[in-house]
Amino acid sequence: MTDQIKFLLDENEIPKSWYNIVADLPDPPAPVLHPGTGQPIGPDDLAPLFTMAAIMQEVSTERTIDIPEPVRNIYRQWRPSPLYRARRLEQALDTPARIYYKYEGVSPTGSHKPNTAIAQAFYCREEGVKRITTETGAGQWGSSLALAGSMFGLEIEVFMVRVSYDQKPYRRAFMESFGATCHASPSNRTESGKKILADTPDSTGSLGIAISEAVECAAQRDDTKYALGSVLNHVLMHQTVVGQEALRQMEMADDYPDVVIGCTGGGSNFAGLAFPFIGRKLRGEQTVRVVAVEPANCPSLTRGQYAYDFGDTANLTPLVKMHTLGSAFVPPGFHAGGLRYHGMAPLVSQLVNTGEVEAVAYQQVECFEAGLEFAKAEGILPAPEANHAVKGALDEALRCKAEGTSRAILFNLCGHGYFDMQAYSDFANGKLHDQPYDESEVAMALAGLPSVA
Amino acid sequence: MTDQIKFLLDENEIPKSWYNIVADLPDPPAPVLHPGTGQPIGPDDLAPLFTMAAIMQEVSTERTIDIPEPVRNIYRQWRPSPLYRARRLEQALDTPARIYYKYEGVSPTGSHKPNTAIAQAFYCREEGVKRITTETGAGQWGSSLALAGSMFGLEIEVFMVRVSYDQKPYRRAFMESFGATCHASPSNRTESGKKILADTPDSTGSLGIAISEAVECAAQRDDTKYALGSVLNHVLMHQTVVGQEALRQMEMADDYPDVVIGCTGGGSNFAGLAFPFIGRKLRGEQTVRVVAVEPANCPSLTRGQYAYDFGDTANLTPLVKMHTLGSAFVPPGFHAGGLRYHGMAPLVSQLVNTGEVEAVAYQQVECFEAGLEFAKAEGILPAPEANHAVKGALDEALRCKAEGTSRAILFNLCGHGYFDMQAYSDFANGKLHDQPYDESEVAMALAGLPSVA
Repeated sequence: MTDQIKFLLDENEIPKSWYNIVADLPDPPAPVLHPGTGQPIGPDDLAPLFTMAAIMQEVSTERTIDIPEPVRNIYRQWRPSPLYRARRLEQALDTPARIYYKYEGVSPTGSHKPNTAIAQAFYCREEGVKRITTETGAGQWGSSLALAGSMFGLEIEVFMVRVSYDQKPYRRAFMESFGATCHASPSNRTESGKKILADTPDSTGSLGIAISEAVECAAQRDDTKYALGSVLNHVLMHQTVVGQEALRQMEMADDYPDVVIGCTGGGSNFAGLAFPFIGRKLRGEQTVRVVAVEPANCPSLTRGQYAYDFGDTANLTPLVKMHTLGSAFVPPGFHAGGLRYHGMAPLVSQLVNTGEVEAVAYQQVECFEAGLEFAKAEGILPAPEANHAVKGALDEALRCKAEGTSRAILFNLCGHGYFDMQAYSDFANGKLHDQPYDESEVAMALAGLPSVA
Repeated sequence: MTDQIKFLLDENEIPKSWYNIVADLPDPPAPVLHPGTGQPIGPDDLAPLFTMAAIMQEVSTERTIDIPEPVRNIYRQWRPSPLYRARRLEQALDTPARIYYKYEGVSPTGSHKPNTAIAQAFYCREEGVKRITTETGAGQWGSSLALAGSMFGLEIEVFMVRVSYDQKPYRRAFMESFGATCHASPSNRTESGKKILADTPDSTGSLGIAISEAVECAAQRDDTKYALGSVLNHVLMHQTVVGQEALRQMEMADDYPDVVIGCTGGGSNFAGLAFPFIGRKLRGEQTVRVVAVEPANCPSLTRGQYAYDFGDTANLTPLVKMHTLGSAFVPPGFHAGGLRYHGMAPLVSQLVNTGEVEAVAYQQVECFEAGLEFAKAEGILPAPEANHAVKGALDEALRCKAEGTSRAILFNLCGHGYFDMQAYSDFANGKLHDQPYDESEVAMALAGLPSVA
């Protein structure tokens, strides 16, 4: 019998800085535009919503940004996270591929999200903020910010997408256990929410709607900031601790990935693993293929447009250039709630646009099948989101088998599925199905894209 | 702000042997008796149910027993587990106490149970067993055996206490995800189950009943063995990897516990942490106080009798000398399902009887309050069972504060609460209450104790 191999770093190898891929991009990122004027916005425009530290990181072109010691001290609870060679899975697949995965489920909320939640909450406390509002889909992000709030003594208010709020009452209980307040979105607490409810009383919600509510709520009070769990440059950058550790761990394994894979909703776990590897490629140090895996029912990278769009449904946010299905698009209620976002991180979009990153979309049933195959071999049950990355890795491994070639595959197992057992229960009972992709709904949402020069 | 401190061992410091406290006990354990003859039983009597390796460990008087390499290789996925100094909790309590906890929630099923599940499944495979039957209360044990079965290619059949089966459908989904079969107990699949259902059609079940069913089922087929997740000597011994690691980690911390605390259901997580420390005391190397914390509604150590009793309700098992509430006792359906057992491990009972171990009982509401206080400070939400150990540690820490003395407190955080969010949700909604302790029911169950010379 073969066993998995664990590559574990010493505590003092937690990265001391975050990696900013902007420094290595051949072209600068497209400017962020003011929703009213259509003109590039400056730091001051973002100040009502974000801490100055976050804003400065958002526009930084420095290659590295120091991680504050208090943030590293909390990272230390679960970081460095393990990287495994999935030899049992390789054996089960009978593939010559060498499969590696970085496991972020060891964090106290079971996903990669605390990597940025802790950092954002830290900066809030440093700048005297008392309260943070946010949105959450599957609940991973809300849970992580709730945890971060309890670490830094901050009030946390979470707008949770209605479908997840109903499907995952335990996620709400988790957030509340750490002292956070949780509302089903759309809610009656904001103008954006009320408007949606007036039009669609039984709205299942979406990340776009929840973002509108959280942003509106944050803008109302001086002591309140807004925190986003993905999409933005500084959020992706906070996740690069994942890829930086993985680089060191691949060295320990005396190997280097031929292909790096992550699932993409807003793009943060994908970027966290992939950007340090892409950076090496952009600097001419080492080649690598990079694959972003998205859900077929919310296929921003594979079916969306690369265009300026709003980050939220009520169109309160600045305009960013990204792959988008249109801010009016509401994806069906499939189980990978963390991947239900109409847009994609601008930095990930730019890399897809320049061909540095490939994108592929999968249906949910095949992803659950892949996740269960992985679990039985490796002993870890992945989150539904992570199942997409697993499916991507399995397909690459089977391609190796068909071709009779051995390639090194590295993917991000961004979270475990302990909070998603309803989905696995549905799957076991034959109640989990693929959902049709509605071309006309996407076309309609895309038709509503703002016109920008 | 103060941060927790993590003490992490290197992979090669996973213990190479289990520690057998029997070698250090001043008196030998009371013999196990045949239920029919009342005479001490030998290895052959146990052979229909257990592997020869397990039986030999059960009766061994050797101080150490080597851990097979294939078992250590699977331990490696999550071991060595971290030990933390809870400085944030100390600060929140404003106590001079130094609080340490060993965290077993990092295992793939979120508790200490895989430490023995992996070992038992390994021996089954070595001896050509195809199928293992077992019982489970909260589901931690069944999940762990399901995982172990998938690692070694064994069929796993789990009898799950009805009240937990109904309260925790996600635990069942977890077991099934790893390929196990799961029945609500009492079931119609066994004579013992049928008999209970005939008398009490709406029986909520108990560990004692589920054990009867699993034992009956295993005895029927030659290719099937039975596995127990606690109580027995060899099971407790497999858990001593916990305490052995903790001994090394306390050395790293340059400290030694004045008091060691664990929660007790059958006794295995408690023994796993405490026995290596008690062993040092028995050998005259270092003193320590040891406290077992049990639920007030199933208080075998604090209200039971130290007497010979059956391990199961149908009285199919041998007779063991232990603290017991009587094998007919069915505890109320409180949330710490893993602590709902009428008896206590004979080795733990013996140590309580000789005064090496103190016992204390708590109500469930105060335990949940303690668990939430711990979570907000330390960022980990404990399992309801583990909340009992947390409560024990908090009380010790507050005693230090009242006395103005600094003592080192070490407890076993044997699992996280990710699978127990219904309990936390009930608690948040004011639906979780203390339950009365039924003296007359215990008296009745105790009156039925078998008479042994």
